[in-house]
Amino acid sequence: MTNALSQQAAIVGIGATKFSRDSGCTELSLAVQAISAALDDADLTPKDVDGLCTFTSDNNAEYEVFRNIGGKDLRFWARAHPGGGAACTPLQIAKMAVLSGEADVMVCYRAMNEYSQYRFGKGYGSAQWSEPFPTADATLKSMHTVHGLRTAAAMLGISMRRYMHETGATSEDFAHVSVAARRHASTNPNAHFYGKPITVEDHQRSKLIADPFRLFDCCLESDGGIAIVVTRSDRAQSLCQTPVRIRAAAQGSRDAQVAMVNYYNADISMFGESALVAEQLYAQAELTPKGIQAAMIYDHFGPTVLPQLEAYGFCQRGKAKEFVRNGNIEIGGTLPINTHGGQLGEAYMHGLNGITEAVRQIRGNAVNQLDSVDNILVTGAAGTTTSGVILSKY
Amino acid sequence: MTNALSQQAAIVGIGATKFSRDSGCTELSLAVQAISAALDDADLTPKDVDGLCTFTSDNNAEYEVFRNIGGKDLRFWARAHPGGGAACTPLQIAKMAVLSGEADVMVCYRAMNEYSQYRFGKGYGSAQWSEPFPTADATLKSMHTVHGLRTAAAMLGISMRRYMHETGATSEDFAHVSVAARRHASTNPNAHFYGKPITVEDHQRSKLIADPFRLFDCCLESDGGIAIVVTRSDRAQSLCQTPVRIRAAAQGSRDAQVAMVNYYNADISMFGESALVAEQLYAQAELTPKGIQAAMIYDHFGPTVLPQLEAYGFCQRGKAKEFVRNGNIEIGGTLPINTHGGQLGEAYMHGLNGITEAVRQIRGNAVNQLDSVDNILVTGAAGTTTSGVILSKY
Repeated sequence: MTNALSQQAAIVGIGATKFSRDSGCTELSLAVQAISAALDDADLTPKDVDGLCTFTSDNNAEYEVFRNIGGKDLRFWARAHPGGGAACTPLQIAKMAVLSGEADVMVCYRAMNEYSQYRFGKGYGSAQWSEPFPTADATLKSMHTVHGLRTAAAMLGISMRRYMHETGATSEDFAHVSVAARRHASTNPNAHFYGKPITVEDHQRSKLIADPFRLFDCCLESDGGIAIVVTRSDRAQSLCQTPVRIRAAAQGSRDAQVAMVNYYNADISMFGESALVAEQLYAQAELTPKGIQAAMIYDHFGPTVLPQLEAYGFCQRGKAKEFVRNGNIEIGGTLPINTHGGQLGEAYMHGLNGITEAVRQIRGNAVNQLDSVDNILVTGAAGTTTSGVILSKY
Repeated sequence: MTNALSQQAAIVGIGATKFSRDSGCTELSLAVQAISAALDDADLTPKDVDGLCTFTSDNNAEYEVFRNIGGKDLRFWARAHPGGGAACTPLQIAKMAVLSGEADVMVCYRAMNEYSQYRFGKGYGSAQWSEPFPTADATLKSMHTVHGLRTAAAMLGISMRRYMHETGATSEDFAHVSVAARRHASTNPNAHFYGKPITVEDHQRSKLIADPFRLFDCCLESDGGIAIVVTRSDRAQSLCQTPVRIRAAAQGSRDAQVAMVNYYNADISMFGESALVAEQLYAQAELTPKGIQAAMIYDHFGPTVLPQLEAYGFCQRGKAKEFVRNGNIEIGGTLPINTHGGQLGEAYMHGLNGITEAVRQIRGNAVNQLDSVDNILVTGAAGTTTSGVILSKY
């Protein structure tokens, strides 16, 4: 079997808009702003771009984006489905495209007025989720919706409550994830919670949203856009930024998986999709978890970081509750996670801000810069069809 | 530059449901039926499948399809956007995935109750096109919709009317495309118009739908599903069917392109996207148009076959009107097209039935079998962001 990973793809530019709760502009404008910033960062022009990748959940059609950035000939585009879980898939697709020659310069983007325009947290039944016809997906969801499972929080809460039962993890254990995120966000001027750290007690006092998730367990809802430029290593070397290698990229879904709902699995407290991604990533990268110095763990809900730490091999099953205590996941700890503040502290960007933070850490110019990082794991949302990448220093 | 085409990907199984106007079952059931048939055709089991690809316009979520076919671990999925124009993109993505090792066995699928459930021909403004928020795409379309451009026929009709002005092509020239399609469909028991050939006079008498398109210029609207199984050549050789090589695959969109509307181009009678795809396909395949023995040309509207024949290099600009006369595009002609009856005669399946027909022709078991075919061109919808493949005999 020939694996494209014997060759290399590199991230050569990143860009983002301001993160806010009211961008005051269209989603198309956010996409164009982010892409233009990423191309400037890479010292490339719109005419260099010949490939695009976004999520199926993104509203910005490729041809609209391409015309508005000033592109010329577009030779490749594809979408990762649906977003969130597929957070790392655009990088996987971009890697494949540049290595196979389908495109020379791929731009991955995600732009949304998530807060000012729809708010995912409103849940199924609100306007943005309405579907004119009873698809299989909508039909299945309707069986959960009647039981009150209208939001991702409600859906995943059940699995996390079971996880607590199985492992003995408590809400106070979960608090450490939020405290770390808010500590990191507090020194990040681009973060929503810049200058606003919290304590375990603050977390414990925050209101219950969907058991066991408290307010401070839930990610932000944000307006904004992010773009990432990918090309082959040979071209990357002639560009201005320190290239970041896409060392491994994978997706995973298992037989009983449903979006945000894993109730058809034998054990609903297990995150088998994440384990499937982990297995592929370590094999591709020829690394073990010990070779990873930092991780950007998808934190739509902070508590899901615990089973992810286990699925990705950083802790034994049920041991993440000890691991997240004592500063292990904070800057200075054994595995700092979400050093930008994550989606709990910086912004909710369907995970792409975890990728841009990993790039900054490897380049060496993050606001909360770590001392020495060669390999960083980034994950997509857990408890649903998921994805992951390992980004590395050359 | 390393191009994956130095290696090879092969189609090893195809499957389809009955094509109808009232399937009587869900779109998910159609997808599962088609995929099961394709796996049977390939002598593979659902457990062998580890990659899926469909269109963004398909309503069947990957995890629903995967669970319902009886899959185990899904390692890769991506979507082609949006469908129609992207008809050949799932094959391109599947090729990339099996060659890069992201998946061993990819299944491309498309299943829809297009006739019984929504009917694209109803146009923007009807339920299936409603969008809860003003996306850039919807905003742009609203500028056309107020001028009556609610359907693909109305939108593309303007470009084809200009094409007639520029080249001297007439409605009677267009008739030959429909006559050929209906002749081929008439001997295909799976075709909607089985046993129902038409004459040029029948075409000329058919009612005007959107100038210059008459009823018999417009594709069918159909319920049904199609699936195609792709793997690497080495594995293909151990399977039961004669493998069909994906020799080249490409997409194209140019700077001024908008979905189904090319009014921002300097010359709206030109189909520059198709030319961009052609250029890439011939370069990848190391072929010229002379090396192509048959073509499955996307025929959402028969008249668009003429500018496509020119864009893909079979005729000089403006000469397709002579080419389509005298039986050139019929079985026995110099370049038989749509030997299954195409979307004018067999069914409207967003172009995937053109791919399965090309596979049958290369295997040698088509109902309207050609004598000798080594290389077949398949195209995606013209006049919009588009795609194409060249499928070849080993």
